[in-house]
Amino acid sequence: MLAHLRPNIRAMAGYVPGEQPRDGAYIKLNTNENPYPPSPRVLAAIQAALGPQLRKYPDPLGTEFRQTAGRVLGIDPDSILIGNGSDDVLTIVTRAFVPEGGLVVSPSPSYVLYRSLAEIQGARFISVPFTPDWRLPRPWPVRNANLTFLANPNSPSGTHLTLAELGPWVAELGGPVVLDEAYVDFADSHGLELVGRFPVIVTRTLSKSYSLAGIRFGFAVADPAVVRELVKVKDSYNCDALSLAAAQAALEDQPYRLQTRARILATRTRLASALQHLGFEVSPSQANFVWARRFDRPVRPIYEELKRRRILVRYMQYEGYGDGLRITVGTDEEIDQLLAALHQIV
Amino acid sequence: MLAHLRPNIRAMAGYVPGEQPRDGAYIKLNTNENPYPPSPRVLAAIQAALGPQLRKYPDPLGTEFRQTAGRVLGIDPDSILIGNGSDDVLTIVTRAFVPEGGLVVSPSPSYVLYRSLAEIQGARFISVPFTPDWRLPRPWPVRNANLTFLANPNSPSGTHLTLAELGPWVAELGGPVVLDEAYVDFADSHGLELVGRFPVIVTRTLSKSYSLAGIRFGFAVADPAVVRELVKVKDSYNCDALSLAAAQAALEDQPYRLQTRARILATRTRLASALQHLGFEVSPSQANFVWARRFDRPVRPIYEELKRRRILVRYMQYEGYGDGLRITVGTDEEIDQLLAALHQIV
Repeated sequence: MLAHLRPNIRAMAGYVPGEQPRDGAYIKLNTNENPYPPSPRVLAAIQAALGPQLRKYPDPLGTEFRQTAGRVLGIDPDSILIGNGSDDVLTIVTRAFVPEGGLVVSPSPSYVLYRSLAEIQGARFISVPFTPDWRLPRPWPVRNANLTFLANPNSPSGTHLTLAELGPWVAELGGPVVLDEAYVDFADSHGLELVGRFPVIVTRTLSKSYSLAGIRFGFAVADPAVVRELVKVKDSYNCDALSLAAAQAALEDQPYRLQTRARILATRTRLASALQHLGFEVSPSQANFVWARRFDRPVRPIYEELKRRRILVRYMQYEGYGDGLRITVGTDEEIDQLLAALHQIV
Repeated sequence: MLAHLRPNIRAMAGYVPGEQPRDGAYIKLNTNENPYPPSPRVLAAIQAALGPQLRKYPDPLGTEFRQTAGRVLGIDPDSILIGNGSDDVLTIVTRAFVPEGGLVVSPSPSYVLYRSLAEIQGARFISVPFTPDWRLPRPWPVRNANLTFLANPNSPSGTHLTLAELGPWVAELGGPVVLDEAYVDFADSHGLELVGRFPVIVTRTLSKSYSLAGIRFGFAVADPAVVRELVKVKDSYNCDALSLAAAQAALEDQPYRLQTRARILATRTRLASALQHLGFEVSPSQANFVWARRFDRPVRPIYEELKRRRILVRYMQYEGYGDGLRITVGTDEEIDQLLAALHQIV
């Protein structure tokens, strides 16, 4: 039966998500989960949706969520596409825009899933290195791609490009752009206003800033005519009834999001500063993680020693670039323990 | 931006799911939901999973669910792929096997999503009419497809093919087959034993027999080597933490499933018989719905009059075949009300 599979599927390695140990015995700073629990209003909303009515299909278009999100974000609800996590949204957009043999482009180092999505489509993937200070090279060398992905803030760097930088870049590209704003709620600005003015689709997730990685919910913002086409590609019932209830309640509780955001930003500042004192080079982060490198010694043994001490960070290595540690901003207590361990290790 | 979309996406109509009125004021017999609530153990399991830990990502592979399902079904857990509803699984399999310009085949009339999945891939779709008594024509006219879908029991007919019929057909096909067993828990037999012996992937859903359409959970059973390839194609975290907890609890409570199944089968017998007395032709159903046609008068006005009376059934029309009403087996009370209305209408 394997011989019947598409050759591009056989050939690809497949995206490998960060380690998710089930035993809970780790300080887990490796997959950018929010260290604080979801809003109590979210848990109450799930509770209220939990009952006999789960026998019924959910609303295919997530109408109530879209109305809430439209109001909170100040955008047209018809410009919103719901997704089973923002990975689902990225998948839908790729399937809608990228033909077999097409071209997908992304700056690098960045989210490795973009390459996997291209490979699944049987498309080519070209990565364009960021400049050393994490800006976009200009002129941009690969125009007319079927899809260009930009994570902003970027992972693993945490760095962020302003609207003043994004606008001219998008205009220069010509082709469609996915602005992946998974981490934008931790940044100083966002790119929603580019939608409609340029061929831009913005994607968001509730996994990070809303502490809801476990319920899988993301969405895209695009021109309503584009959303109508993307709806054809998504599974009819891609978001379940409990996730929809949770997502709506999460968007409604902005004070809670802002409160956890403030705590994470304060801890981020302290973490970045302490890592620098320990000899790491840390990129300026506008996300809920920092990217720490060093040039006096290899960082992989540091990752391994931390893991031995039950502290998980993400070791990442990129071809033509090198490696580093991507460290999620945890609670103050977790970061204290990380820093104490690093003091002993480095 | 629309000009950048793949032409196959622009050209397709898109799958249209059954009506999902949000006001709850209908007797809803149109999307084959189970009329009975999920098992109390399922609701308790979701309750137990509901808390601060939702900030964390779920297990990407659903290890605990697969162990439970493997034990209950008597199969290797490594032969199970988890999905966000069986539509997700059908999508994953299509993306893994069907290249752009490839060929997808299915008997007809059947689940219209198969055509939509082919269209999204940019593949050709050929439908092969069932024989008048809902058997597969032999010899089968289209071999060597990239993927052949067979819903068994079939929708809209509810009819079911035995292993004695399936085995020779699958052997004749040569190419990979998806045996879509969404409704198999209401049937007399299943096709799991074909997996491994032939290039067969069986798909299942918890939406129908487990009363869990609202949580979106399905799975595939295939050779473990095939499952490893399909894992590359699925979104890493395609099933959320609450759905995984619900699915595992649902599989564990087989007595509950068998109890609701027995009630539905009894009501199905009564419904089919009453419809026949009312002048409908009813196919022998092994699903949780019946397919009712008539040749003395059009059925569309019957559907419309039922809807006016707040009873929703599914009106379906297929090119080259004709139309009919697909009626979900509801509770006895719901079916009594449907039959009373039909007595007045026809």
